[in-house]
Amino acid sequence: MEIKDLGEFGLINQLTKNIKPINPSTIKGVGDDAAVLQYNKKEVLVSSQIFMEGVQFDLTYIDMEHLAYKTAMIVMSNIFAMNGHPRQIIVSLGLSKRFKVEDIELFYTGLKKACEKWSVDIVGGDTTSSYTGLAINLTCIGEAQKEDIVYRSGAQETDLICVSGDLGSAYMGLQILEREKTVYYQQIEEYNNKVKDAQRTNDKARLEALRKERSSFDDFQPDFAGKEYLIDRQLKPEARGDILQLLKEANIHPTSMIDISDGLASEIKHICENSHCGCRIYEKNIPIDYQTAATCEEFNMNLTTAALNGGEDYELLFTVPIGDHEKIDKIDGIRQIGYITKESLGAYLITRDGNEFEIQAQGWALNRN
Amino acid sequence: MEIKDLGEFGLINQLTKNIKPINPSTIKGVGDDAAVLQYNKKEVLVSSQIFMEGVQFDLTYIDMEHLAYKTAMIVMSNIFAMNGHPRQIIVSLGLSKRFKVEDIELFYTGLKKACEKWSVDIVGGDTTSSYTGLAINLTCIGEAQKEDIVYRSGAQETDLICVSGDLGSAYMGLQILEREKTVYYQQIEEYNNKVKDAQRTNDKARLEALRKERSSFDDFQPDFAGKEYLIDRQLKPEARGDILQLLKEANIHPTSMIDISDGLASEIKHICENSHCGCRIYEKNIPIDYQTAATCEEFNMNLTTAALNGGEDYELLFTVPIGDHEKIDKIDGIRQIGYITKESLGAYLITRDGNEFEIQAQGWALNRN
Repeated sequence: MEIKDLGEFGLINQLTKNIKPINPSTIKGVGDDAAVLQYNKKEVLVSSQIFMEGVQFDLTYIDMEHLAYKTAMIVMSNIFAMNGHPRQIIVSLGLSKRFKVEDIELFYTGLKKACEKWSVDIVGGDTTSSYTGLAINLTCIGEAQKEDIVYRSGAQETDLICVSGDLGSAYMGLQILEREKTVYYQQIEEYNNKVKDAQRTNDKARLEALRKERSSFDDFQPDFAGKEYLIDRQLKPEARGDILQLLKEANIHPTSMIDISDGLASEIKHICENSHCGCRIYEKNIPIDYQTAATCEEFNMNLTTAALNGGEDYELLFTVPIGDHEKIDKIDGIRQIGYITKESLGAYLITRDGNEFEIQAQGWALNRN
Repeated sequence: MEIKDLGEFGLINQLTKNIKPINPSTIKGVGDDAAVLQYNKKEVLVSSQIFMEGVQFDLTYIDMEHLAYKTAMIVMSNIFAMNGHPRQIIVSLGLSKRFKVEDIELFYTGLKKACEKWSVDIVGGDTTSSYTGLAINLTCIGEAQKEDIVYRSGAQETDLICVSGDLGSAYMGLQILEREKTVYYQQIEEYNNKVKDAQRTNDKARLEALRKERSSFDDFQPDFAGKEYLIDRQLKPEARGDILQLLKEANIHPTSMIDISDGLASEIKHICENSHCGCRIYEKNIPIDYQTAATCEEFNMNLTTAALNGGEDYELLFTVPIGDHEKIDKIDGIRQIGYITKESLGAYLITRDGNEFEIQAQGWALNRN
């Protein structure tokens, strides 16, 4: 169905009619000029992020449902990175004409799945047209007790630097997706050349054979064998709210925290700058999945670079007092990768062979274009 | 300066380095994973809106500074429409390569002016690249005492329907801007044709004369004489927080309220739907500026259609109990344009000659494409 057949208000009504807020902080969700929230004595956390087609996502790889799920996880991850709980989400969409009502419904399906996972209410939606690609903006609102909030600025000398999960896998997932896209387009180009040849020589039997071959492209199956984890990390990341729960249960209060969207290097630099400190990261301690390692080798890429600068990990990077060393050790899925130093000592990676390299921050979004 | 020379973080630092929060509710502004706000017992209002180049704005007419001012006023207007006070704003920008650092600085200049006007803090900014045009998303956060909030849903039978300012002027401003753009492009086309003719006949004297004439296009002055108000309304709308103050001073509490972004017809329909009521609007009572009327005549357009469906007025449309009739009468700049009826009576415009026409809602953003 075309969006114009429903109209702007019809579309918004259709998408939001079954949305029922579940959080006590949601007083009024979709349907007025603004959402109305009540946070009482808690502090309100707000984070907003824009995603542009061709820059942050490529609809050749990712469908609308996964895209919504992923972008929602990304903004929720920002709230978790403050040691807060996401409670509401507001979505803005700029849609070019090629999008049908069904596409937007799929987007909302993915958005609802992400929101259900963390009991988040969809409290607003703005939909407009776009002359070109798809633009998505998500605003996530969350809450935390004042004393629970963890900023980027609280790291202290001797603190341990910890990271959840593993790094570089989403980036290697992207490399595989890009390779398969290239293979797909090469096959199409070869096919088109064969058709042109057959047309030039007016070879009807050949053209008929090629016509039959055509359908195989619609069934193109990218080769993801042995890379499933990497593809999953790229297309369906999970915000690490579970890590906050583990830390709480272990009675650990991080001194600083950030989520890894632009890569470990960039994020640890943010912590160092905001906390006015330096750091040492041990290359050997950076958690890497075996699929990531194997794929780096296959692509002849540097594994540590993928882990440091790949980005899109959406893992939590945080610091804890050195006294929490043993408590952290007992938690599965958290790795101690280094320690905080005086600011004057700078931010360095200690390689496996004992050399020190200065860590360079690298922004993600703007560098891709 | 190219954005890539500064980098994503450098750009954000440069844009936000002088921003100092002034509201007590702003605990932490720009510079962490999320803004941290504290609203105590007040309710939190959140509204988010996306603006796409070529759909909501055309950079042929509006410069980056005015664009920022206008879009900020639009999201603040949503908070005022709840009878709340805007306190924080978060901006997301998707920027194509043609934008330089100076363009973004101009955008921030306009944003800061709008924020200063209503004492709003800029508490977050996300900047990314875009493959095509400019995409802007603004999220505005505001506050209100629970008992002060005015929803779209509170209108009651016999309530008076009121509107601030005048309607249709921003729409007629757009018509003039579009006409001047057409004139400009026609002149360029005619000029290019003359150059081609001279080139074909190799008429060097003529080519030299045309070369001199060229500079006049850079000085093209659109003809806005007598239309200044309309252009202002289109390019520099003002959110009507002042009206809330006047109502408060007069001890008037609206029963329902909305701001007029898509046109009076569309907005009164929203109030009727949400309040489960009907309405009668008197055509003769709709406030129209004389520049709007004169320009409608010049363009041979229907004045009431411009006022009903033009949109972008950003005036407040609200209902008050009939007992407030005299109090409203005393306030300059508010017009009583009709009254609320039972739902079964529908929503109708009563024309100057006494006929009744059913009011048709018309979405704005999606219809322009």
